[in-house]
Amino acid sequence: MTDCIFCKIINREIPSYKVYEDDNVYAFLDITQVTKGHTLLVPKEHVTDIFDYDPALAGEVFARVPKVARALEQAFPEMQGLNIINNNKELAYQSVFHSHIHLIPRYGKSDDFSIHFGNNQEAYSSEEMQAIAEKIAKQVEQ
Amino acid sequence: MTDCIFCKIINREIPSYKVYEDDNVYAFLDITQVTKGHTLLVPKEHVTDIFDYDPALAGEVFARVPKVARALEQAFPEMQGLNIINNNKELAYQSVFHSHIHLIPRYGKSDDFSIHFGNNQEAYSSEEMQAIAEKIAKQVEQ
Repeated sequence: MTDCIFCKIINREIPSYKVYEDDNVYAFLDITQVTKGHTLLVPKEHVTDIFDYDPALAGEVFARVPKVARALEQAFPEMQGLNIINNNKELAYQSVFHSHIHLIPRYGKSDDFSIHFGNNQEAYSSEEMQAIAEKIAKQVEQ
Repeated sequence: MTDCIFCKIINREIPSYKVYEDDNVYAFLDITQVTKGHTLLVPKEHVTDIFDYDPALAGEVFARVPKVARALEQAFPEMQGLNIINNNKELAYQSVFHSHIHLIPRYGKSDDFSIHFGNNQEAYSSEEMQAIAEKIAKQVEQ
């Protein structure tokens, strides 16, 4: 896609710090290192977000996640955890509209990264939970 | 695994609000609904975290993510975004040690969920970035 910064990175029109590449995926350091080794894994094909994926390609791309995760663990033995994040659409903090998976190594409580899950507990009754689950289940089977 | 709450859910020893199931994966509502439709996708086999995955199984499990994502979008047309999160190890906010992928639908800025990426910009020189990338690349090829 002409104006896509990640397509330009994949096509070497823009330099990047490459971590891994194969026929379907490209992995490189996020230019903003949330923590040391913060890596982005992207499909080479321009896919906007999770809703835009062909399931087979999604499988190919996501199947590379443990490979890169293990490489991070080997490269940085001081790593104590890993957050894997894929944000979809602007409201959910997606800023580049070429689907990408963040791998964010964690080294200690002193880093500045956090996920706040909110405080929405017990917002739904068991009947409501059942209705929500059935609504999704009905769609997932189609 | 005897003491694993997600294994018990998969084995029907503990009830859950099921969203999807096939030979390899089970998807159900997180009992703590960060937002409406907050779903957990887990491998049926007990896998502790991303480092513990057989790559083929990881591909199978992660390949289901777009399927569930699209179902959420169909079930809740008011959805405006989706955060997909997989936390690994306690420091990175993993609380149940059976690998799980959160799918958190987003409906508006008013919900209480957030990701704080921190402010670590420009912490590394280009030479340091190159060294970090090479360190990971060396491991990922092995």
